[in-house]
Amino acid sequence: MSFSSDTASGVHPKILEALHSANAAPSAPSYGDDALTRQVEAQFDALFETKTAVFLVPTGTAANALTLAALTPPFGSILCHEEAHIHCDEAGAPEFYTHGAKLVPLAGAHGRLSAETLETHLTALPSSIHQVQAHTLSLTQATEAGTVYPLDHIEALCRTAKRFGLHTHMDGARFANALHFLGCSPAQMTWKAGIDALCFGATKNGTLGVEAIVVFDQKLAETIAVRRKRAGHLFSKMRFLSAQMQAYLSDDLWLHNAAHANAMAQKLKDGLLTISGATLEHPVEANELFITLPESVLTALEASPHSVHRWNGPHGTLVRMVTSFNTSEDTINDCLRIAQGAASTA
Amino acid sequence: MSFSSDTASGVHPKILEALHSANAAPSAPSYGDDALTRQVEAQFDALFETKTAVFLVPTGTAANALTLAALTPPFGSILCHEEAHIHCDEAGAPEFYTHGAKLVPLAGAHGRLSAETLETHLTALPSSIHQVQAHTLSLTQATEAGTVYPLDHIEALCRTAKRFGLHTHMDGARFANALHFLGCSPAQMTWKAGIDALCFGATKNGTLGVEAIVVFDQKLAETIAVRRKRAGHLFSKMRFLSAQMQAYLSDDLWLHNAAHANAMAQKLKDGLLTISGATLEHPVEANELFITLPESVLTALEASPHSVHRWNGPHGTLVRMVTSFNTSEDTINDCLRIAQGAASTA
Amino acid sequence: MSFSSDTASGVHPKILEALHSANAAPSAPSYGDDALTRQVEAQFDALFETKTAVFLVPTGTAANALTLAALTPPFGSILCHEEAHIHCDEAGAPEFYTHGAKLVPLAGAHGRLSAETLETHLTALPSSIHQVQAHTLSLTQATEAGTVYPLDHIEALCRTAKRFGLHTHMDGARFANALHFLGCSPAQMTWKAGIDALCFGATKNGTLGVEAIVVFDQKLAETIAVRRKRAGHLFSKMRFLSAQMQAYLSDDLWLHNAAHANAMAQKLKDGLLTISGATLEHPVEANELFITLPESVLTALEASPHSVHRWNGPHGTLVRMVTSFNTSEDTINDCLRIAQGAASTA
Amino acid sequence: MSFSSDTASGVHPKILEALHSANAAPSAPSYGDDALTRQVEAQFDALFETKTAVFLVPTGTAANALTLAALTPPFGSILCHEEAHIHCDEAGAPEFYTHGAKLVPLAGAHGRLSAETLETHLTALPSSIHQVQAHTLSLTQATEAGTVYPLDHIEALCRTAKRFGLHTHMDGARFANALHFLGCSPAQMTWKAGIDALCFGATKNGTLGVEAIVVFDQKLAETIAVRRKRAGHLFSKMRFLSAQMQAYLSDDLWLHNAAHANAMAQKLKDGLLTISGATLEHPVEANELFITLPESVLTALEASPHSVHRWNGPHGTLVRMVTSFNTSEDTINDCLRIAQGAASTA
Repeated sequence: MSFSSDTASGVHPKILEALHSANAAPSAPSYGDDALTRQVEAQFDALFETKTAVFLVPTGTAANALTLAALTPPFGSILCHEEAHIHCDEAGAPEFYTHGAKLVPLAGAHGRLSAETLETHLTALPSSIHQVQAHTLSLTQATEAGTVYPLDHIEALCRTAKRFGLHTHMDGARFANALHFLGCSPAQMTWKAGIDALCFGATKNGTLGVEAIVVFDQKLAETIAVRRKRAGHLFSKMRFLSAQMQAYLSDDLWLHNAAHANAMAQKLKDGLLTISGATLEHPVEANELFITLPESVLTALEASPHSVHRWNGPHGTLVRMVTSFNTSEDTINDCLRIAQGAASTA
Repeated sequence: MSFSSDTASGVHPKILEALHSANAAPSAPSYGDDALTRQVEAQFDALFETKTAVFLVPTGTAANALTLAALTPPFGSILCHEEAHIHCDEAGAPEFYTHGAKLVPLAGAHGRLSAETLETHLTALPSSIHQVQAHTLSLTQATEAGTVYPLDHIEALCRTAKRFGLHTHMDGARFANALHFLGCSPAQMTWKAGIDALCFGATKNGTLGVEAIVVFDQKLAETIAVRRKRAGHLFSKMRFLSAQMQAYLSDDLWLHNAAHANAMAQKLKDGLLTISGATLEHPVEANELFITLPESVLTALEASPHSVHRWNGPHGTLVRMVTSFNTSEDTINDCLRIAQGAASTA
Repeated sequence: MSFSSDTASGVHPKILEALHSANAAPSAPSYGDDALTRQVEAQFDALFETKTAVFLVPTGTAANALTLAALTPPFGSILCHEEAHIHCDEAGAPEFYTHGAKLVPLAGAHGRLSAETLETHLTALPSSIHQVQAHTLSLTQATEAGTVYPLDHIEALCRTAKRFGLHTHMDGARFANALHFLGCSPAQMTWKAGIDALCFGATKNGTLGVEAIVVFDQKLAETIAVRRKRAGHLFSKMRFLSAQMQAYLSDDLWLHNAAHANAMAQKLKDGLLTISGATLEHPVEANELFITLPESVLTALEASPHSVHRWNGPHGTLVRMVTSFNTSEDTINDCLRIAQGAASTA
Repeated sequence: MSFSSDTASGVHPKILEALHSANAAPSAPSYGDDALTRQVEAQFDALFETKTAVFLVPTGTAANALTLAALTPPFGSILCHEEAHIHCDEAGAPEFYTHGAKLVPLAGAHGRLSAETLETHLTALPSSIHQVQAHTLSLTQATEAGTVYPLDHIEALCRTAKRFGLHTHMDGARFANALHFLGCSPAQMTWKAGIDALCFGATKNGTLGVEAIVVFDQKLAETIAVRRKRAGHLFSKMRFLSAQMQAYLSDDLWLHNAAHANAMAQKLKDGLLTISGATLEHPVEANELFITLPESVLTALEASPHSVHRWNGPHGTLVRMVTSFNTSEDTINDCLRIAQGAASTA
């Protein structure tokens, strides 16, 4: 089983069942004018305890880029962590969708920005026509380092952002994993903490391919529907995106999946840290490990079915390992057996 | 059953089965590095009897816009029929993806451009730095009027386009229906006739949501992969797009679906033309009817489960009716019974 | 002397003098923070009898495209006459600056749109997420046909536009010529008639290279300053643009220049119409003639210093002739002598 | 006299004279089809000892952004110094013109990048579809720190860039000042060192507003003419841009101006360094000083006609002082007298 990414995992059986159910009627209204889509909208309102504007799209990159374009004019900038997915791993999608806004990377330990860093940066910004002006703050929850922002951390960042007139975006590709770690409510982790718009990930946590843009400030949502169509992200058979999301949110499937992935990450971490020389790069708070392992261990894993992702190129010994909703305990045990075996014979 | 659009239809059972099969393994490489995607690429090479470059995306608008952006610089223009979907119904997606190229609409009877119209237009174009220069010709097959370009027609158009240095794009949202009507090979209807790049539709003909960009001139394909990623159309769990396409192309499913839809359109047409006052707007060559019906008939249909699309606004009597892979003969019979009943009592 | 375009004319001596005066001080604040720029802003407020937002740029294309981008989102459309300069002769500048908005050409006799045509078009527009929605109406005054919209005509067009929620733009490349023809005030021809933003041309009428964007609805002006900088149209030595405009607006230089050019056009028209076979294509209301002349006359003119612009390609006999602030009566007389001579000997 | 920027200086008398001369004929061909423009093109070929493609535009931001757009696709990146004007001071013009390419800032002492830094960065770049790929290296000569790249430094950077397939751009806003410092030929400092395209500044060094895009690799120039038109930077009365450049390049005016400005900078530096506590931030190699001065000195200068630019905000004591073609020795002496006076009484 691959530990290289949670995108390598398949689809939860309940999601596939939902596609079947949605296909029962021979026809249904296209482009989101269907009952399932209405149902998903109601689910998000209930989940977030407020009126939301919801837009389903098939990928996280689409969700982030569309949302950032709604928050940021072409002549604005987006502040984010220097390792943010939107800055490093989306091939310039935010630049494309915003028509050329600038992503401004800021440093921060363990994938997290601090309110102090943000304040220092914003205070030093020249306010003139010659410089791109800051419009949006983007936070990733859980972060790209597998850590999670505590609530008061998000609140402080959003407070600073708002003081300088910025909009706030949360990239929640691993929203469920972060929420499980914090044990708070979705509302607390978002709009109650100052977030204007959320990209609510689901694909990495068991769906086939669906993410929700969830906007709390209705005024900011006005342009998203037409931008989504114009980007080719409005599905004609939308009910099959909605069916996935409907099932994902039902019976706490999303939370169960995340809880399992997080537990497996902890188990994997505990087992690997028994290996001499194994050191964590970041605290493990969601479903990702960034861990340095002896080369002998890596070689053994790479020869096994349990692939890992060497983070700093082909010869580095820092690896990323990601657990998923369908990572079984047996897989973890087998992986640990191989790793520990390789370590003891090295 | 809705006759308003083939996008209202559901998903063919074999496509859902394919999603199940693709989910058998607990994990697989992401972003298209999987075996199913390789298989689909090979299928397209075989189908078109040449080496192709294939890119799967979830919607037709994405397919068209990405392809046009690969063929046309921001400062170029795209010539198309004045009723072309890319011009009228994609909310400016080609303009977005090309970064501002101009769509130039040309007239033509029954949804078809003629080589003469194209030649006249291109000859009259001023060739100066002050005008946007023509770069691409886009044809829709089957057309937005439900008609089909004969092969020699496509050849003549492409010949003229090439003489003026244009690239050629085919919007094949209903490619299968057109191919069935002509009874020719996919190669004959595309690259052998002078087409550089095709958007091969599948969603309207039974898949859940997948279309293929098929490029015959490899040089033109160079930028599509990065543009697709940048647009958020590269699926992390790509194998579930590939699985749909793989099943669609297997055992001639795509052709059987199109043959059925086309046959149902003929049956519907024949039945409706028995009604006094019913007149066809365009020849019925694929799976769409554009037909004027008495108001009494429309009222009766609108009160029935068989919805139609009034083409010229809420009070017009020209309607579009679209058949699909899952339009049953019983549905057609029931629809005709209602329509003919309403006509006879009017 | 060239009659091919008023852009072929040079610079009025008072404009060059103004550049000298502006250069008297060895240094001055850059980027528009200078006294001359303040003075020009005050001049526009006085001229238009209201508070305006003014932005100087070096070319008419820049003025139009920047203004249209401030009025129209990337996913909107701009309605204009089918012969509008913004649609036909700016190489897609509006599409570039708006990030892909669509220009929608409408027909109209003698270069003028009618309120009826506009209303019919707007009423028929489908209002759905699948179509680009109309955001802006653009009028050219004087028109590309050398005609002028009467005031009630502009008012009717703007009233219709506003009823459908559109912004209104006036391309005033030949604003002075139109104003002289109507004999009304600048306010009457613009904001009092319903115009939101004007591109106030000056280059064709005697400056070296400066145009003013004049915005009457301050809210619409908010993004223009940063867009101008971002487009490279903010001059570091701005005072030399301002100096031109300051001199142009002083002592009614702009109106005298236009009055002269218009008078010369009338004289030229009257003389040419004495030629057998000479027929006007459009009424001559500003400083442009569109006139069909015998081939022998055209040949004679082309062999003389008085070049003309064959409007429909190298073999057409419809020509455009443009007079300018510095077209002398002697030049007109000489041109007429040659033309009439060629006609009489043909 | 302002020392805040060389853009605060006026226009050299010979440039104004050239405008007068160009205005002698009552009319001339528009849009660059005139004799002066041809003459300027020939001047550049001679100056750079090779066939060049030359495009005149009114501002440095336009020159840089247009050139970078010709070198870099929307999905590419541009590597530059972290203090580069294109990254920090053009309000996102490169992002606008390239349609969303990413500027990637790299560190380097005294405003200069090193080939080692470049190589390290390029080697570490992941080569995948998920990341924006590097397409262009941009160097500023003289740099934003008032220093100058030695020839072997440029050569090493370009060699590394070419090895990784990058295009090379030089922002020569102060090209003349750098050239004078190095005492080499224009060819040596550009194409012979590996530069593909140069923005040849003239505005800061005595013209009213004109810069030249000079392209050495003809293939890269293909799209610039249409991009210039589309951006509104093609002057209808182009001959008045050409006249400025023609005069600027004649009789070595450009080199004399730069030599004078550089000499004045040295004189100013020498005088200021006699003040106790005065320290240079960067070597003075062109016409800019970055110098820390006692607060009492700054206060005295700010009360005098000799304005300076506090570089790090209103309370910093690091200032930028820029000399110009028209900074007189008297001005320098007066400025030093005031500064030294304030220092001695502090």
